[in-house]
Amino acid sequence: MNAEIIAIGTEILLGEIIDTNSAHIAQSLPELGIDLLYKSVVGDNLGRIVETLQRAWGRSDLTVITGGLGPTEDDMTREGICALLGEEPRVDAALETHLRGFFANRGYPMPESNVKQAWLIPSSRALDNPRGTAPGWWVERDGRVIVCMPGVPTEMERMWANEVKPELERRSDGQVLVTRTIKTVGIGEGTVDEMAKPLYATPGIGVGTYARADGVQLRIGAKAATREEAWSRIHPVEEELRRIFGSAIWGFDDDTMEGYLRDELVRRGQTLATMESATGGLLTSVLTDVPGASAYFKGGMVTYQTQTKIDAGVDPAVIEEFGVVSAETAGAMAKAARARFATDFGIGVTGVAGPDPEDGVPPGTVHVAVAGPGDGVSHLTIAMNSGRAMVKRRAVTTALLLLRRALMEGAG
Amino acid sequence: MNAEIIAIGTEILLGEIIDTNSAHIAQSLPELGIDLLYKSVVGDNLGRIVETLQRAWGRSDLTVITGGLGPTEDDMTREGICALLGEEPRVDAALETHLRGFFANRGYPMPESNVKQAWLIPSSRALDNPRGTAPGWWVERDGRVIVCMPGVPTEMERMWANEVKPELERRSDGQVLVTRTIKTVGIGEGTVDEMAKPLYATPGIGVGTYARADGVQLRIGAKAATREEAWSRIHPVEEELRRIFGSAIWGFDDDTMEGYLRDELVRRGQTLATMESATGGLLTSVLTDVPGASAYFKGGMVTYQTQTKIDAGVDPAVIEEFGVVSAETAGAMAKAARARFATDFGIGVTGVAGPDPEDGVPPGTVHVAVAGPGDGVSHLTIAMNSGRAMVKRRAVTTALLLLRRALMEGAG
Repeated sequence: MNAEIIAIGTEILLGEIIDTNSAHIAQSLPELGIDLLYKSVVGDNLGRIVETLQRAWGRSDLTVITGGLGPTEDDMTREGICALLGEEPRVDAALETHLRGFFANRGYPMPESNVKQAWLIPSSRALDNPRGTAPGWWVERDGRVIVCMPGVPTEMERMWANEVKPELERRSDGQVLVTRTIKTVGIGEGTVDEMAKPLYATPGIGVGTYARADGVQLRIGAKAATREEAWSRIHPVEEELRRIFGSAIWGFDDDTMEGYLRDELVRRGQTLATMESATGGLLTSVLTDVPGASAYFKGGMVTYQTQTKIDAGVDPAVIEEFGVVSAETAGAMAKAARARFATDFGIGVTGVAGPDPEDGVPPGTVHVAVAGPGDGVSHLTIAMNSGRAMVKRRAVTTALLLLRRALMEGAG
Repeated sequence: MNAEIIAIGTEILLGEIIDTNSAHIAQSLPELGIDLLYKSVVGDNLGRIVETLQRAWGRSDLTVITGGLGPTEDDMTREGICALLGEEPRVDAALETHLRGFFANRGYPMPESNVKQAWLIPSSRALDNPRGTAPGWWVERDGRVIVCMPGVPTEMERMWANEVKPELERRSDGQVLVTRTIKTVGIGEGTVDEMAKPLYATPGIGVGTYARADGVQLRIGAKAATREEAWSRIHPVEEELRRIFGSAIWGFDDDTMEGYLRDELVRRGQTLATMESATGGLLTSVLTDVPGASAYFKGGMVTYQTQTKIDAGVDPAVIEEFGVVSAETAGAMAKAARARFATDFGIGVTGVAGPDPEDGVPPGTVHVAVAGPGDGVSHLTIAMNSGRAMVKRRAVTTALLLLRRALMEGAG
């Protein structure tokens, strides 16, 4: 089954809103055995919407549309589909009752313009949307399917998961693609590729490598009539790759480094604290992006000024001798964080996020240090002047990887 | 002039990489007087690339392509354009010398596959790319233009700014669209709309309202033969809107709330400190996303555990009486931050980011407090269980707006 995705909305076309819906949908199509061939964006213009729909109808078995289901004149997805199929909309009594109830529950009358959200055409049925007023449309005719969902991501994601995906799964008579991602760190992509190469020729399996900020990923893919069959081909390859890469593997599929660190620290009953300047709180924010971080994370300090670092326990002699942006000061910050919060591990980050140099240190220079239970400190320095936001993100990833390394070494 | 944007790459199509290039380009087209009508994404498949290029060539004066200029077999943008135009590529001697020099400077030999990055066709000329090995292509024939740029955002952004945009500006013989955005806060969209309505009928001007997380924006747009003429129509409308909205206006165009707060605090010579739990460092990270924040931001604490809050100066009696997730504890945290770092203002944030309730408090409940120089404390509470990431972002925006309000009141 071939598919394409169309996002409708002038704000998306003009880049005022970044379209994350299309990526969300695209990522779940392979496991349904659906091949995605095109994505497109069109503004709130009926002529161009219809033109785009006609092309999709002509070439794709499945067209997934997001956006343009609101109540205003600018929302023209339903009108576009009516024009495409030459069908007349009518107000569905049950949908209208439901819609009026939605407004009544919130205690205000329904604007009459909203009534078009209760439209149906002969080829469409409504898709439930408990998170908003716009139901989706499942349109089916001549063996082709169009799915329309709201543009608001939370509404779209629920409708996709609860209404659309199960229906597409039921219809999947072809082959399903199952993928397994193995996440490694500490080995370059070329070497990973060399090490995995003996498995590339396994029949019925595809293996690829992908370089990411947090290490190199190996992806195993298998296409088969059933998920079980696909998994039965993946498992032996995964076992072999686990054997080859051993402790260089830190996670699988959707695992994140912050989730790995939480699991590992909680499992060991160990704790962590941070002291950061260049990353300005982002390191701590990422560490606590996973639920349950309070079980191991005791506290963090953002010491944006030199005096604040000293007040927080950093030895002023270290700053005096090596400078505030130095591996030594990062180490002293890691130790001070560990001491202040009485934790097993401490992370220190100091650097110049940019855009300007500070005290002669070029922007993009960041020192990261981890202090561990044995009073040992490890450092990493990055130098990459790629803009303030990117420098901060890169430094956070470096800190997470360095902590992981310290945990591994402590375990060894 | 009509334009469309095409992003080429299977990783973008499948949602493994979010395409930010298209938004970057789209945002700068209006000021060039260029109307963007379509955006699309196509994978690394020559047939589908050529099909997409043919449609663009048939309907758009300008097609802007990103991606597919790398050295591998998967990179087929150049091949697609050769097929579209029926032109043969040849290796350009000057480009090849430049390319080999790029590798020589880095001290390793050029893989022979890279030589296609030195290709030109009769209708193309190279666009300089000092940040990478792939030059862009400016393709022009029969009055139509195709621009090809690398997919790596930093390479693309430089090429767009230095090579492509100036050339498009030179050719702009039509009308330019100039827009001015005025950012307000504290007034609902319906009321902003009512207040601005008298100006909607101004000839040669468009005015619209847009609801955003940090308030309602007013956008004034004018299309004219020159930028000067467009600005001369915008200015009187802007003046009138400034008069109408007064202190509800906090910024213009690309201004951010964190930039506004930095400017305002630096101007007043006042300082800030934070103590956050639910937002886990994100508030401090956002505050320090703007350069120069160290001039007013003295320090932050992420007190993820109750004992850490007490150690940092929060009165345990307040936590005991009202609970750790309460407006009172947020206020005590704001005061403790202010006291600990000896600043003029302190922000405290406590809440339940989710996904699970804590001590009977539902997820998505966050209390934000600001303590000011007069020992006064103001609070805001949000309750919106929309996922951990969204709750954190929403709480940060609320904290910034609350600080802004405290600054305004202090000034009044």
